[in-house]
Amino acid sequence: MQTVRIALGERAYDIHIGADLLARAELISGVLPHPRAAVVSNTTVAPLYLEQVCAGLRGANVDVVSVVLPDGEAYKNWDTLQLVFDALLANRCDRQTTLIALGGGVVGDIAGFAAATYQRGVPFIQIPTTLLAQVDSSVGGKTGINHPLGKNMIGAFHQPLVVVADTGTLRSLLDRELRAGIAEIIKHGAIRDATFFAWLEANMAALLAREPAALAHAVRRSVEIKAEVVALDERETGPRALLNFGHTFGHAIETGLGYGEWLHGEAVAAGMVMAADLSCRIGRLDAADRDRLRALVSRAGLPVAPPPDLDPERIRSLMGVDKKAKAGRMRLILLASLGTATIATEPPEDVLRATLTAAAAR
Amino acid sequence: MQTVRIALGERAYDIHIGADLLARAELISGVLPHPRAAVVSNTTVAPLYLEQVCAGLRGANVDVVSVVLPDGEAYKNWDTLQLVFDALLANRCDRQTTLIALGGGVVGDIAGFAAATYQRGVPFIQIPTTLLAQVDSSVGGKTGINHPLGKNMIGAFHQPLVVVADTGTLRSLLDRELRAGIAEIIKHGAIRDATFFAWLEANMAALLAREPAALAHAVRRSVEIKAEVVALDERETGPRALLNFGHTFGHAIETGLGYGEWLHGEAVAAGMVMAADLSCRIGRLDAADRDRLRALVSRAGLPVAPPPDLDPERIRSLMGVDKKAKAGRMRLILLASLGTATIATEPPEDVLRATLTAAAAR
Repeated sequence: MQTVRIALGERAYDIHIGADLLARAELISGVLPHPRAAVVSNTTVAPLYLEQVCAGLRGANVDVVSVVLPDGEAYKNWDTLQLVFDALLANRCDRQTTLIALGGGVVGDIAGFAAATYQRGVPFIQIPTTLLAQVDSSVGGKTGINHPLGKNMIGAFHQPLVVVADTGTLRSLLDRELRAGIAEIIKHGAIRDATFFAWLEANMAALLAREPAALAHAVRRSVEIKAEVVALDERETGPRALLNFGHTFGHAIETGLGYGEWLHGEAVAAGMVMAADLSCRIGRLDAADRDRLRALVSRAGLPVAPPPDLDPERIRSLMGVDKKAKAGRMRLILLASLGTATIATEPPEDVLRATLTAAAAR
Repeated sequence: MQTVRIALGERAYDIHIGADLLARAELISGVLPHPRAAVVSNTTVAPLYLEQVCAGLRGANVDVVSVVLPDGEAYKNWDTLQLVFDALLANRCDRQTTLIALGGGVVGDIAGFAAATYQRGVPFIQIPTTLLAQVDSSVGGKTGINHPLGKNMIGAFHQPLVVVADTGTLRSLLDRELRAGIAEIIKHGAIRDATFFAWLEANMAALLAREPAALAHAVRRSVEIKAEVVALDERETGPRALLNFGHTFGHAIETGLGYGEWLHGEAVAAGMVMAADLSCRIGRLDAADRDRLRALVSRAGLPVAPPPDLDPERIRSLMGVDKKAKAGRMRLILLASLGTATIATEPPEDVLRATLTAAAAR
């Protein structure tokens, strides 16, 4: 087991990474402020791991209830959140109950937001079971739900007490989910670590084959990179925006398609390629670096362009409501080189449109 | 104008108290981090003050939009909160938009919770226009909405940038709303300041007659008392619980009647009398002090007992889900004397039932 410490002052916490950590209930029971927990999972993950987690906690004398939600980004909304509140109240859970998210990013976002707002805040723990959740939503404390007019528009920052990333759970992951997680891993290399990016180029086949050592390294280095950025900027006022590389385009794709049609990582993958292309078009990035990024995304089996049924005009209009907009202006994360990202405010409209048109033609 | 500083470290803020402060837009525009604001009000308050507030801000070059919500505790729910999110998104409000609550406690709670969760948190300002909101919800940062199974079950702590309490707005208040505010003022005296309690006994007629000097003193001293307690304990883990004097009984009454039947202050008034009676029954409080509290509540035109259609058994069962319960145990705030409150964990069941039965017989 490897442990990455997320340095956030009094909200600092550990991320444990390794195989078969679900069997180690003490990683969770040891940090519970009170021996009461509610495990939130979904219909896909619960049959695989819920009983093991609950039994382990009960063995450590923890009073446990559970809530099983429908699976999928399409359910990341108020109605599903309400199912959590209903269950907590029906079980008379009080402020000393810790919420534990067992599942992917959607479960983590919903359970985390429920923890942030149930009785004005209860403790929270994450057990991410997808690659995306292990490398992305496990760090940063972002929680929330979608609104019909925008993704993650309603939410809160709420840091977990601990994150237990069991790489063994990745064996049961669908290929498409695995690739969506790899998209964020590529992002972490692209924005901050050229060496890691080169390692990904050399080891993509091993990751796709789910070789344990490769997965463990990729998860650990991704978590470290994200943690470095988040520690600089917990509330997302500055450098943390770099983590949104590919996301302004990506969110527009997700919103345009309707949540759940494309996985978040798939939309971000296409978004990264578009952001790199725009970086190129305004002369910040070499074409060779853009092409390396596009090639790596493609080798990971991820889309390098938006879906054909979303035309450039539609994507452009959806980019306007992205919440990273600052005082009405659009901020895009661009690349200066592989491993170095920068913030661009108000990219030239003609270049933005040329980028969208070129992407649509691919 | 008088100003009370709420000492909360980097979240410290001022409460300005005085007549005709709505005319002083600079009290608000001067603290806005960006010149963008969304004013949230309700159908009762908006016709009286919304235009004045918006015009004042526009005169200070602030870009202003507004949202008008239905009025009443019955609307303190997700559907109404959603109206705020819908309006913010329709107006493309971003993270730099400050939400301003213009109204009573319900508007403040909903707008505050919207500010805590819109795009994971935007700045917030309060302009409380009821006595209750000026003396109670203006201090402490509590925001939230009700759930069918419990009051304020979903919410967040979110401190305002500033509070502008214009005592001139109290002239338009219904008598019943005025008395509900006086209930919390009595509470502040009862739990922490015997001198202020005695002042209230001497000046209740002046308060009910809305004499400006009396109202200003009562608001200021109430805010100071609440601020002293909150500053000790921002997240409600210890001393702040004393502010819940009367609230465990009161919340049970509100839930049992259905939100909105009794005003919050009315339920708290009856709850305080019951908590004082229980304090007496276990020998902590002199009967004379209990009788002084009951007499003052009565002189304020507030109920001293629960409504006849809620029997003791029903109130008792509703007290079980109060969120101030700690690890499944009930905590009640009791009085040791007028001006001194204490926390009691698990009051004897027979005394609790005797208190409820006696109250029902009044």
